[in-house]
Amino acid sequence: MTQDEARQRAARAHLTYLAEPADTMLGALLRDNEPAAVVAAIMAGRLPSRVKRPDRDAGALTRALRRWASRVPESPAEPDLASWQRQGIRLICPGDPEWPSQLEVLGATAPYALWLRGQADLRFGCLSSVSIVGSRAATAYGTHVATEMAAALGERGWMVVSGGAYGIDGAAHCGALAAEGLTVAVLACGVDRPYPAGHTELFDAIVAQGILLSEWPPGRTPTRHGFLVRNRVIAALTRGTVVVEAGLRSGALSTARHARDLCRPLMAVPGPVTSEASRGCHDIIRNWDAVCVTSAADVLDCVGPMGDHLAERTRGPVLPHDSLDPQTALVLDAVPARAGAGPATIAASAGVDLDTAIRCLGSLAAGGFIDRSETGWRIKRPPRR
Amino acid sequence: MTQDEARQRAARAHLTYLAEPADTMLGALLRDNEPAAVVAAIMAGRLPSRVKRPDRDAGALTRALRRWASRVPESPAEPDLASWQRQGIRLICPGDPEWPSQLEVLGATAPYALWLRGQADLRFGCLSSVSIVGSRAATAYGTHVATEMAAALGERGWMVVSGGAYGIDGAAHCGALAAEGLTVAVLACGVDRPYPAGHTELFDAIVAQGILLSEWPPGRTPTRHGFLVRNRVIAALTRGTVVVEAGLRSGALSTARHARDLCRPLMAVPGPVTSEASRGCHDIIRNWDAVCVTSAADVLDCVGPMGDHLAERTRGPVLPHDSLDPQTALVLDAVPARAGAGPATIAASAGVDLDTAIRCLGSLAAGGFIDRSETGWRIKRPPRR
Repeated sequence: MTQDEARQRAARAHLTYLAEPADTMLGALLRDNEPAAVVAAIMAGRLPSRVKRPDRDAGALTRALRRWASRVPESPAEPDLASWQRQGIRLICPGDPEWPSQLEVLGATAPYALWLRGQADLRFGCLSSVSIVGSRAATAYGTHVATEMAAALGERGWMVVSGGAYGIDGAAHCGALAAEGLTVAVLACGVDRPYPAGHTELFDAIVAQGILLSEWPPGRTPTRHGFLVRNRVIAALTRGTVVVEAGLRSGALSTARHARDLCRPLMAVPGPVTSEASRGCHDIIRNWDAVCVTSAADVLDCVGPMGDHLAERTRGPVLPHDSLDPQTALVLDAVPARAGAGPATIAASAGVDLDTAIRCLGSLAAGGFIDRSETGWRIKRPPRR
Repeated sequence: MTQDEARQRAARAHLTYLAEPADTMLGALLRDNEPAAVVAAIMAGRLPSRVKRPDRDAGALTRALRRWASRVPESPAEPDLASWQRQGIRLICPGDPEWPSQLEVLGATAPYALWLRGQADLRFGCLSSVSIVGSRAATAYGTHVATEMAAALGERGWMVVSGGAYGIDGAAHCGALAAEGLTVAVLACGVDRPYPAGHTELFDAIVAQGILLSEWPPGRTPTRHGFLVRNRVIAALTRGTVVVEAGLRSGALSTARHARDLCRPLMAVPGPVTSEASRGCHDIIRNWDAVCVTSAADVLDCVGPMGDHLAERTRGPVLPHDSLDPQTALVLDAVPARAGAGPATIAASAGVDLDTAIRCLGSLAAGGFIDRSETGWRIKRPPRR
């Protein structure tokens, strides 16, 4: 890494302290300027002439500089990336080999940089990845489905991305871990103190087998608004988003909305219509055209490379009489089960002419469906399978 | 009724004995000839020259005449409609005031006539009608949903049509009856001996409050094939079809297929993905574009006259902070719950500039969200609702 690269990297780290994620004014500045120049402008309280101004009104720019400057006192001017690295926490920036370039679809709200903790390679994992999200107030049904679906995806080599929360998120991470699959928790707080604390064991397991990821710098605690901002990253990282259970006010629907707005496949798992926890899922299946998915196979049918993961056509077992032509099936229906009947009786009952009845009775006898008793044709039990 | 009208009506009654329903050859003959002429041809074993031949091969026509003739011996040549009438069973024919003209969409498979038993007016009821169908092997969930949905439709003046079977069908009829709504059971056997016998009480209640209906003449017992043929009538009679629970081999999916093929709205109720009984529903939501419906209101949104029955937009409760603009929400998130904080701290934490923070804190205090303690601003509990 050149000295300038290191400087720009440190500047991006600094910016994660100074600005809230998804600040479109900062996004616009970073489109045309180097991060270090933007940081210098914030420290100076004004934009030097060499910094390209975004196409916004001057007042908004002044207010933005002031809002970022208000955080300067409490932010480390030179974040010690090497020290974080020793603690297992790394920063990745746009252009890095591990940077998931699909985040660029977020435009002016793309992350300035990402803080990562864990062993997996983020960009590689994201190539085959699905978000599984849902309510914290999940039911036993929802957590069961999320766990099974994530495990089945993990077994097939797909990475499961979620938000690390209680309920569906946690079940999805657990399922992926159980299948020894990759999993990523996208947090709305520092990766050094993942929230909620009740998931500490889960987060430790994710660090060992996957990645904790955040736009917020280490040390930061989450805010309600932060969770909603975070959701756009969950949607943007993956090839598609599955909502497993969501009430009508669930934050999972914000992730779903981002997936839809980014034109990523949006899927939802149905549940009992009597369950409040599935109402959001039914709502988006009905109104937003989320695809109804019932299994990992259905999910891969939506997001897998074309033709690679086609879900088998669901169908019931094939029964012997399925193969009969319609007339023969009519005749079979007309053959009595116990007392035998003659061809004329069977023809009349089936509503076919006598020649047809005789021909069909011959095929049915040959197929082992019926046999002839002293009193006439009757159903053979058990039928040949 | 003129003497000729009576003769044509008797001929149609006779034809329901001679031919299985949906015999396209008979349908084609009836398109161009009077029923009495067709019956006369069957009795004579040949088509007289005045009978218009359908555009089919002569062999098929000969075979058809033979197959209908095979039932002549066991069929009443002059069905005693007056006697049936006294037993509460009436025949309706195309052109009758009570004939549901929407059956014409069935083309060559349209019923030749319908045998009815019950007090309601079929044509009037069908104007606002929905089919509710599903598995005989229904779960407690499915029967609950079918009952509630049918009752809610009945309360709103909608007629519920189903097949009279155990499981979902029976639950749908019961729900409609409980709400004192009209309900029709479309049978695959004579209306004098409705099948299954275990539903005798239900059928008696339907006769008192709705209609038993069949294409088959009195006395006829059902065949497996007959149920499938019958399903097209269920789909064609109503404004839309709802599948409540259906395994992958459920006959309800045949009704669903007819509804789709007739371009009638097709709806399905989701259920747990862990339930085999809902797999057919999820399959058609996913693959055939059945609309996902969770309530009678959703159903009426699909089939009701435009604008009459719009389902209310489902949404969660509105909470006070929903009305806050994004910046004010950020500031509210940054206000501590217990120990107070000053505006500069709050501004830095929220990531807004000081002026904005002060303005937002003012609004929040005025709105009753926060108050000022000796140590600064903090959340007011309980917040004003």
